[in-house]
Amino acid sequence: MFKEYDVIVVGGGHAGCEAAAAAANLGSSVLLITMNMETIAQMSCNPAMGGVAKGQIVREIDAMGGYSGIISDKTTLQFRMLNLSKGPAMWSPRTQNDRKRFAEEWRLALERTPNVDFWQDMVNSLVIKNNTVIGVRTSIGVEIKAKSVVLTNGTFLNGLIHIGEKKFGGGRTGEKAATGLTEQLTAIGFEAGRMKTGTPPRVDGRSLNYSVMEEQWGDENPGRFSYTNVELPKAQRCCWITYTNANVHETLKEGFEKSPMFTGRIKGLGPRYCPSIEDKINRFAERERHQIFVEPEGWNTCEIYVNGFSTSLPEDVQYRALTQIPGFENARMFRPGYAIEYDYFPPTQLSLTLETKLISNLFFAGQINGTTGYEEAASQGFIAGINAHQKVNDQHELIMKRSESYIGVLIDDLVTKGTEEPYRMFTSRAEHRLLLRQDNADIRLSPIAHKLGLISDERLEIVNEKIQNSDAIVAFSKKQGIDMGSANTMLEELGTSPLSQNVKLFNLLSRPQVGINDVRQMSPALEELLSQFDKETIEQAEIKIKYESYFEKEQEIVSKMQKMEDRDINPDFDYTQLVSLSKEAREKLLKIKPRTLGQASRISGVSPSDISVLMVHISK
Amino acid sequence: MFKEYDVIVVGGGHAGCEAAAAAANLGSSVLLITMNMETIAQMSCNPAMGGVAKGQIVREIDAMGGYSGIISDKTTLQFRMLNLSKGPAMWSPRTQNDRKRFAEEWRLALERTPNVDFWQDMVNSLVIKNNTVIGVRTSIGVEIKAKSVVLTNGTFLNGLIHIGEKKFGGGRTGEKAATGLTEQLTAIGFEAGRMKTGTPPRVDGRSLNYSVMEEQWGDENPGRFSYTNVELPKAQRCCWITYTNANVHETLKEGFEKSPMFTGRIKGLGPRYCPSIEDKINRFAERERHQIFVEPEGWNTCEIYVNGFSTSLPEDVQYRALTQIPGFENARMFRPGYAIEYDYFPPTQLSLTLETKLISNLFFAGQINGTTGYEEAASQGFIAGINAHQKVNDQHELIMKRSESYIGVLIDDLVTKGTEEPYRMFTSRAEHRLLLRQDNADIRLSPIAHKLGLISDERLEIVNEKIQNSDAIVAFSKKQGIDMGSANTMLEELGTSPLSQNVKLFNLLSRPQVGINDVRQMSPALEELLSQFDKETIEQAEIKIKYESYFEKEQEIVSKMQKMEDRDINPDFDYTQLVSLSKEAREKLLKIKPRTLGQASRISGVSPSDISVLMVHISK
Repeated sequence: MFKEYDVIVVGGGHAGCEAAAAAANLGSSVLLITMNMETIAQMSCNPAMGGVAKGQIVREIDAMGGYSGIISDKTTLQFRMLNLSKGPAMWSPRTQNDRKRFAEEWRLALERTPNVDFWQDMVNSLVIKNNTVIGVRTSIGVEIKAKSVVLTNGTFLNGLIHIGEKKFGGGRTGEKAATGLTEQLTAIGFEAGRMKTGTPPRVDGRSLNYSVMEEQWGDENPGRFSYTNVELPKAQRCCWITYTNANVHETLKEGFEKSPMFTGRIKGLGPRYCPSIEDKINRFAERERHQIFVEPEGWNTCEIYVNGFSTSLPEDVQYRALTQIPGFENARMFRPGYAIEYDYFPPTQLSLTLETKLISNLFFAGQINGTTGYEEAASQGFIAGINAHQKVNDQHELIMKRSESYIGVLIDDLVTKGTEEPYRMFTSRAEHRLLLRQDNADIRLSPIAHKLGLISDERLEIVNEKIQNSDAIVAFSKKQGIDMGSANTMLEELGTSPLSQNVKLFNLLSRPQVGINDVRQMSPALEELLSQFDKETIEQAEIKIKYESYFEKEQEIVSKMQKMEDRDINPDFDYTQLVSLSKEAREKLLKIKPRTLGQASRISGVSPSDISVLMVHISK
Repeated sequence: MFKEYDVIVVGGGHAGCEAAAAAANLGSSVLLITMNMETIAQMSCNPAMGGVAKGQIVREIDAMGGYSGIISDKTTLQFRMLNLSKGPAMWSPRTQNDRKRFAEEWRLALERTPNVDFWQDMVNSLVIKNNTVIGVRTSIGVEIKAKSVVLTNGTFLNGLIHIGEKKFGGGRTGEKAATGLTEQLTAIGFEAGRMKTGTPPRVDGRSLNYSVMEEQWGDENPGRFSYTNVELPKAQRCCWITYTNANVHETLKEGFEKSPMFTGRIKGLGPRYCPSIEDKINRFAERERHQIFVEPEGWNTCEIYVNGFSTSLPEDVQYRALTQIPGFENARMFRPGYAIEYDYFPPTQLSLTLETKLISNLFFAGQINGTTGYEEAASQGFIAGINAHQKVNDQHELIMKRSESYIGVLIDDLVTKGTEEPYRMFTSRAEHRLLLRQDNADIRLSPIAHKLGLISDERLEIVNEKIQNSDAIVAFSKKQGIDMGSANTMLEELGTSPLSQNVKLFNLLSRPQVGINDVRQMSPALEELLSQFDKETIEQAEIKIKYESYFEKEQEIVSKMQKMEDRDINPDFDYTQLVSLSKEAREKLLKIKPRTLGQASRISGVSPSDISVLMVHISK
């Protein structure tokens, strides 16, 4: 009934979809098993993609030939580049999306990907032989063989939904939980834990008074996630901002005694940086108000996602509190917010390829690794899908570096340090974030993707042209002088100090106040050069000109640290022999099995002196 | 948290959606409670609407201001008028639909209907006081008050899914079953039973070989369900036909010993006229092949619905049998077929308004009344929604007559005769089917809908114009003579016998071979008249001309029978006093409580002599 697949992907969320697409695009035969084919790529939480650090991840996935950026672009209600007032490392693309369109486009994209088959069923157990996974068994009793399996179960493993004092099993509200897998994996020796996440109520947009809220439109000239030429929607939809207040907080507090969080009924830890509204007013008692983002669920629907108001308080408390928010006085709820507890597997049980250490050819990706966020999940799925393919085809593994991508930071953090609470990406987690920008994800990652075979020669060529052309603009700016007199008129208009002598374009552009578009108006030579290039190329050049020295310094640091990163450690290295290691370091090293000296140095409990010991011995 | 609603509708399928829209459009405040807002109006079975007798029902719903026709038209992949070679009473519109679009358009239509609110939750019990329903209680523990409740639970009440020897709870595959309601209702005194229905496997269209199948396109000049000006899709999608064969049947038989149907694990009766493939080869053992309709699930998806292959045999048997169907040799399954058992309430417990006899203001509609089919469900929901509104507003009840609509036939059959197996509509169930045509549903029903306030003055005016104008054409045809000579040239071309004298247009058009469009070409006077009118008006006139005498005879029969139908019986009439009634008749009359002598005469076990007894006594 089923052929033997190269890769079985269990779960059809962000992680599962990217895993299936990546493995199939590399040439693997892939079976995506989902409990419900109607809910593939359903956005369980907010109808948005990207944001700070997360937007960079979407760009990275796109640069490497993943689909998340394309799907997001196609289904964008509005696009905003966040943090434009800060340095380019902080610029972060974010979209609001049409929830139904997003899911539909993902499903169609997968259908159009040769080598992806589908099967609607629940996977209850893995078939394992000689510590290697060789297939799965499902709830209707079929056994399907595969050379590798990627588990992306999200919140479905023993999912338990809480609303006030009520609780019931479910992977999402209205959908069944998945059972069996955790029990099998822990019996094998995997460590499992519980985490929790939550979602806010949804309300009827027809019942809101928008006139008292702040409008929030997308960018006037919207950007995009994808480096490909996706056709963007022509229009955009408005979002709104409103705020909680003391009354809202007081009302919420009335529900605290029935809160599953505060009464200890929920055992799992929730996402620290995406807290419930009750968490916020509890932890930040001094804050008089919290921002509420009023987000439409799609182009046409009146359903509204109340971002910032995630809660598992009793539904009547949710309602009474909601209706005290300005603009929500007459709000009607469609669905209450809820919390969900689910099983996860501490990710230190994985290698940097996302393969489990205990069972060969078994990969974990997404929320079951203890992360939160669509983008974090998608990127893990993407890497797991690639590595599943590479493994079963005896190809080299793909390990993303911390210095070249947020995806590398994410996976290295998870695998090396583990996480006890849902892990979310931030720019601060990336020590080389100056280099990991949304504008250069294509430059950073296209060569890797091209070598794997995930992007075409043509696509790589476009990236190379972008590099060459932006470099040409930089070189031109260093050569081309500018007349002090005409420059000073412009500088005065821009409100910055005048020049006292003729300078090169490069020097003028180094000033933060001076944009390349200001200068091209007064320099026909520059204008002539720039007119040949697209917006992205010019932007890239401008960023290089303005921040070149910072980037160079950062690159030097990377190069120095690279020596540590390049010092490979045999995963089977016997740490028990090294008596001079501290006891803690020995234990941790045995558990994590770092692949490089760099990774070893990031393990908590491994000190610089432990690293010195290692340095000596691994060279032998 | 909730206001008191006029009408709560439980369930968001075809019945629930029409009920909510109808009650709201009449002015009731309506709350639609569904277990999952993402699956409102999900087509659980085939992606198609209408068909023989069912298409007429959709036209009737549309004529009265319901939404099913509009939604179907908007989401049509292809339209066909079935049975065009037969008389106009058999003409039956049918569409293939985009499953996702259909559900989405329904949800948006409801969102755009003022007075419809939504709540995502599971109703576990009704709140009842003094034998009157006054609200519902849900799984998360809220109590919502309402003046009336319409239950449209479909297959969800204690739903149990069977695939071979496996079974698991669920309202549809991947979705939870609903619990609590049946238990409460039977405790109150309702009779409940089990029925079963089934669905075929879905397959990957990319794996089929269409070249060996017959193409089936929609009509070249497609019609529509709706009498309103819905914009129709510009394109259409092809379907295909293929056939089972002896090998397929032999393979299926290998699974019989594990069949939940044949081994008695399924207790409920299934739809006789929509049998599973195993039922077909079992009951019609002499048939060498059965037709398989290969239906796309939407505009873009590759998923295919294998219509005609409904089955609950083990999935491996399904697969092996499927792959022996021409064109399916390499078929990949997406989801297996399955059977589902669910609770229903024998509909003799309802009055003709669809209100329950036991509990006031409680209405049942759709599959829980023992019907099968989207159209049957939708029409019941529509009538229940209307009557719920009318009841709580002290307005007259709406009882549809058998002589004026299929909807009347459906409800009268259900309520008067009950059903022990899923009830499906056929033209043969309508004794006056000559009058209940798809072409005149607007003429038959618009006045009723207009009086209720469901359609506008403008819409009624359009219908009245259609009547007047088509009558004018008929009158003209009776007056206008036609020249024998020129007519005979045409008649020869049409291959029919020549005239021997000049006749009226009417006589010429009475011939089955002669169409009005043939004649208009040779009669400038007719052409001038017709050029003023639209296609529907001209078609209506043509049908009247060709079948006038039949219609008149049928109308006479209706008038005669109407005397019985007009003889009202007090629902509280005490049949125990009538000793001359047969014992069986007395029992049945007490149970059914017919509203008219006509209805009484249709109760099985009530004989003509019982009716004579009644006739005497109800007049007193």
